[in-house]
Amino acid sequence: MFPAERILLGPGPSPVPQRVLRALGAPTLGHLDPQYLAIMDEVCEMLRQVFRTANPLTFPVSGTGMAGMECVAVNLVEPGDEVIVGVNGVFGTRMKDVMERCGAVVHALETTWGDVFTLEQLRAALDAHPNVKLVGIVHAETSTGAHQPLEGFAELIHSRGALFAVDAVTSLGGHELRVDDWGIDAIYSGTQKCLSCPPGLSPVSFGPRALARMDARKTNVQSWYLDVSMLRKYYTGGGGGRVYHHTAPINMTYALHEALTIVLEEGLDARIARHAAMHQRLRAGLEAMGLNYIPKRSLHSLNCISIPAGADDAGVRKRLLEEYGIEIGSGLGPMAGKAWRIGLMGHGATVRNVDLVLAALRTILGRG
Amino acid sequence: MFPAERILLGPGPSPVPQRVLRALGAPTLGHLDPQYLAIMDEVCEMLRQVFRTANPLTFPVSGTGMAGMECVAVNLVEPGDEVIVGVNGVFGTRMKDVMERCGAVVHALETTWGDVFTLEQLRAALDAHPNVKLVGIVHAETSTGAHQPLEGFAELIHSRGALFAVDAVTSLGGHELRVDDWGIDAIYSGTQKCLSCPPGLSPVSFGPRALARMDARKTNVQSWYLDVSMLRKYYTGGGGGRVYHHTAPINMTYALHEALTIVLEEGLDARIARHAAMHQRLRAGLEAMGLNYIPKRSLHSLNCISIPAGADDAGVRKRLLEEYGIEIGSGLGPMAGKAWRIGLMGHGATVRNVDLVLAALRTILGRG
Repeated sequence: MFPAERILLGPGPSPVPQRVLRALGAPTLGHLDPQYLAIMDEVCEMLRQVFRTANPLTFPVSGTGMAGMECVAVNLVEPGDEVIVGVNGVFGTRMKDVMERCGAVVHALETTWGDVFTLEQLRAALDAHPNVKLVGIVHAETSTGAHQPLEGFAELIHSRGALFAVDAVTSLGGHELRVDDWGIDAIYSGTQKCLSCPPGLSPVSFGPRALARMDARKTNVQSWYLDVSMLRKYYTGGGGGRVYHHTAPINMTYALHEALTIVLEEGLDARIARHAAMHQRLRAGLEAMGLNYIPKRSLHSLNCISIPAGADDAGVRKRLLEEYGIEIGSGLGPMAGKAWRIGLMGHGATVRNVDLVLAALRTILGRG
Repeated sequence: MFPAERILLGPGPSPVPQRVLRALGAPTLGHLDPQYLAIMDEVCEMLRQVFRTANPLTFPVSGTGMAGMECVAVNLVEPGDEVIVGVNGVFGTRMKDVMERCGAVVHALETTWGDVFTLEQLRAALDAHPNVKLVGIVHAETSTGAHQPLEGFAELIHSRGALFAVDAVTSLGGHELRVDDWGIDAIYSGTQKCLSCPPGLSPVSFGPRALARMDARKTNVQSWYLDVSMLRKYYTGGGGGRVYHHTAPINMTYALHEALTIVLEEGLDARIARHAAMHQRLRAGLEAMGLNYIPKRSLHSLNCISIPAGADDAGVRKRLLEEYGIEIGSGLGPMAGKAWRIGLMGHGATVRNVDLVLAALRTILGRG
């Protein structure tokens, strides 16, 4: 079993630094070993720095990004609760589905795929549904490449007594994201995007309003695996010290520790600036080739472009993979066959990769 | 971050072979890369061999063992369903809790912790609750070390039209376990026990009766992350080829591939015999020291013994860890302070480890 060394420029996973792969293969400790608990504590502390939050309840859920989405939903929603979910792509659609499975009455706030929501649209939705208990918004819509601004949302949402939950799977560690300054009450992400760690963990953070909501629940959390009332006793110790809940993914925690160390060594601001610069470099090259971005306001970490007329979607991606070892993403959902998604995430957002993928596309598309 | 090289003789994780740690650190592929899909197909095929089943729907859930338990529960139980769960330890108690969170009406089949259930006890429970739709039994109760025989259970359960679900977290790959021969309809396990892979995946298998039950559901599966009606389109391809569901834990899949390769190289029968022999060697040594087993019928993979009068529970475990680098488990739940749990799982079930832990206990307990 010798996996090829791909250059991962799709919607995730992103390229993983050798340092992180080495950490992954460190000797396995027990999940209650004092050494392991110290490593986990450091992971949680570094996550707080990357989320820019002081929330004590910040930890990696033992599953991939969608487990984080489900963790936020099952803990904050009770059957019959009205919620608003922003639906302008696959992941907003999915958040609506997940919330409905928790018994929520979901009011979809919709706009064209590729667009983002304005404060005015949200205000109108809140006016129409005054009993809403939570608003869920995708910060980085991985299916369309749209970058949703979040400033000002929390004030509006909190003024109606609702919680503000955010999907930051494709933005954490690559885009400006300020959990405390922006008043975000609950947030989830993935490790395999801008953090450049393999998939397998989903960092989450819950603020004081979210904790109060959980403490006031009238019903049991429907998922045992994702029940924060138990998980918090393991991750934050609580009064009686650590309480075993489930066996955490030990080696993945090592990898996340190393990946976060690299993020903080580079510095969050520098890393975000690098993602912006590489996006601009790629964008200039793609547009010079006559290729067009789909979203009006593009993410830096994910570049979603229209497949040009006459190009063979699968054929181009196959040549990129086989001749160059480059993976890019196909269109997802209704965008299948219409879009390509080029990720520049974490360790993958380099001049080397940008110039290579541009050169490869020029050759394959014959747009010299 | 340099984790110590512990000798993991607790209730899991078990020691991970260097080959598996190396596989874990192989280059990360995308989750839809043809190379990765081939690796995943091989993992599923090897899992079928280790489970001794022909079930096409056999795959690793993207979470630790308890995610597997929850996956079986959310897919096979609908609100209001009556189920019987065998409760004779922490994991039976937990299965009851998980089933109840799915809306099941759970009839607990109870016996003393450390004991196992007889066919007669199950028959009486089924007689008392003729509308039961599923019976859940723990094969290897990790909290008490009890080894539950399963032969004959399926015939009885199926004669009442119910499904047979089994927790094999601590037995898969270390104990005789025959999914098809024993008529098991749904089963889950963990990677970090007798398979000697790090924690992070939960192998599951669903048979034809379970599939029929899922296809006949009237309600949505409450968990999106664990919804087998979607997962099966990724893992078994279905008619329209692979359908993306979530980003699988790529590198953990490499590790499981290598761990299963090692299991099959040794041979399942030989591996099971080795676990039996190492258990007997440990048991002889412990009993010669005057230590007593708690369960009447002990697992080979987990040895649960009473803490002898006068011994300092935490102090002994601390000396084992600090002086010998050996981890053993404390008692769980009501057995806290009363039991030690010595795991001999997978790569850890060796003469070297057995003789070392016996020597260490002799020294620390002063039972030369």
